[in-house]
Amino acid sequence: MRRFYVAQQNITDTIVSITGEEAHHIANVLRMHPDESIIIFDGSGWDYEIRLQSISSRLVTGHIISRTLNSAEPPLSITLVQGLAKGEKMDFIIQKAVEVGVNRIIPIHCDYSVVRLEGKKPTARVERWNRMAIEACKQCGRSQPPPVEMVSGLEDVLKKTADRPRIIFYEQSKERGLNDIINQHRRLFLEQGLTVFVGPEGGFSPAEVHKVQEAGGWIAGLGPRILRTETAGLVALSILMWELGDLRA
Amino acid sequence: MRRFYVAQQNITDTIVSITGEEAHHIANVLRMHPDESIIIFDGSGWDYEIRLQSISSRLVTGHIISRTLNSAEPPLSITLVQGLAKGEKMDFIIQKAVEVGVNRIIPIHCDYSVVRLEGKKPTARVERWNRMAIEACKQCGRSQPPPVEMVSGLEDVLKKTADRPRIIFYEQSKERGLNDIINQHRRLFLEQGLTVFVGPEGGFSPAEVHKVQEAGGWIAGLGPRILRTETAGLVALSILMWELGDLRA
Repeated sequence: MRRFYVAQQNITDTIVSITGEEAHHIANVLRMHPDESIIIFDGSGWDYEIRLQSISSRLVTGHIISRTLNSAEPPLSITLVQGLAKGEKMDFIIQKAVEVGVNRIIPIHCDYSVVRLEGKKPTARVERWNRMAIEACKQCGRSQPPPVEMVSGLEDVLKKTADRPRIIFYEQSKERGLNDIINQHRRLFLEQGLTVFVGPEGGFSPAEVHKVQEAGGWIAGLGPRILRTETAGLVALSILMWELGDLRA
Repeated sequence: MRRFYVAQQNITDTIVSITGEEAHHIANVLRMHPDESIIIFDGSGWDYEIRLQSISSRLVTGHIISRTLNSAEPPLSITLVQGLAKGEKMDFIIQKAVEVGVNRIIPIHCDYSVVRLEGKKPTARVERWNRMAIEACKQCGRSQPPPVEMVSGLEDVLKKTADRPRIIFYEQSKERGLNDIINQHRRLFLEQGLTVFVGPEGGFSPAEVHKVQEAGGWIAGLGPRILRTETAGLVALSILMWELGDLRA
């Protein structure tokens, strides 16, 4: 069944009101009819099965038939701190990270970032990324769109992520492998979740790696091949969801 | 140091001749000078360090300074049988599969494939994909570009891949998880490598899954979220390279 996102205030005990783009999509693109059924989610973790009642391009209403707890939300909470990459790559990273099960995304301006977002651009871009996260949830079956936060600097990000352990991926890592880190701190990660840092196209600077390490972060590599920034995050999230989350299930 | 691909017949015991696009790139794009050094690879598994001698846009020559065995080639041999996906997605899949360490790629026409390549298109497309595989090797540090073979049908692919075990990813899988398959056949995979089947946008048909299973393939899922075709292959390869290859190193 098709999935749509609706803000929580538009859901009562029995009735759902769908407006904006989603209403337009149901009425004009999919040309759905009354009595057809859809699934809606509101970020609460619940999926609602809805029977459509009235349909127009501005407002679609429906009855709630049933409510079930969504089972596609991962048990492991991972925050991805992603070095700002060029336009399309960033879109791709957001989409894929949501599919694999990320919980929160913070784009970060890095020393070696090629892209700089100035003026009004960051806000527009972040809005776009949040819409993409919702779209990815609709497609992959998740019910809680991970927030994509404002683009930040490293100092800010370290404050924002102070509540849980961190891993920074650094290709010049001569430190312990990711495997050792996972095995030694498995319980901690399962209890608290974790934050992973992935650099932009040019990678992290040694100073940035040092700062994350000083803040208690562990440095890890991702094998002998040099992974592009949009590959590194996805590979890292896949491994973590396999080792600690629900990909192995 | 920058990496370039050269055909084996252009390498003697002491001298390398570089022609075509790579020569143009060295001479006109990078504007390199005699006595600068580069790395070349020829698909043999060796990396050659070269000191440039003469440079023109049609022919670049250089002395071989040293030869080292490339360490970015994975110890595990995985063939990816990929359901034909739409243009850009397929490009992306090739690039990412090479980065993560695939050994061979066979695009396959599936029952639910949206894309059909007719006439001369398949040959041109396969040439393009092979160029992309070489480019990905240059970037990620590998020395043996995985061949991208002609687009085939399922029967052909089953014959071509009869020499090693197979896993087919199927989202409606109610079978054993990937974890069980890896644990029960770890030794077999390490000795023989394996072939993984990933469906196109519409997934595999039940008939296709049945055929692969009849040919001895195991069915596996990839967790509770519905992964897009271009995500599924990359996640599967990441997990297999982590469990059986060199990502954990």
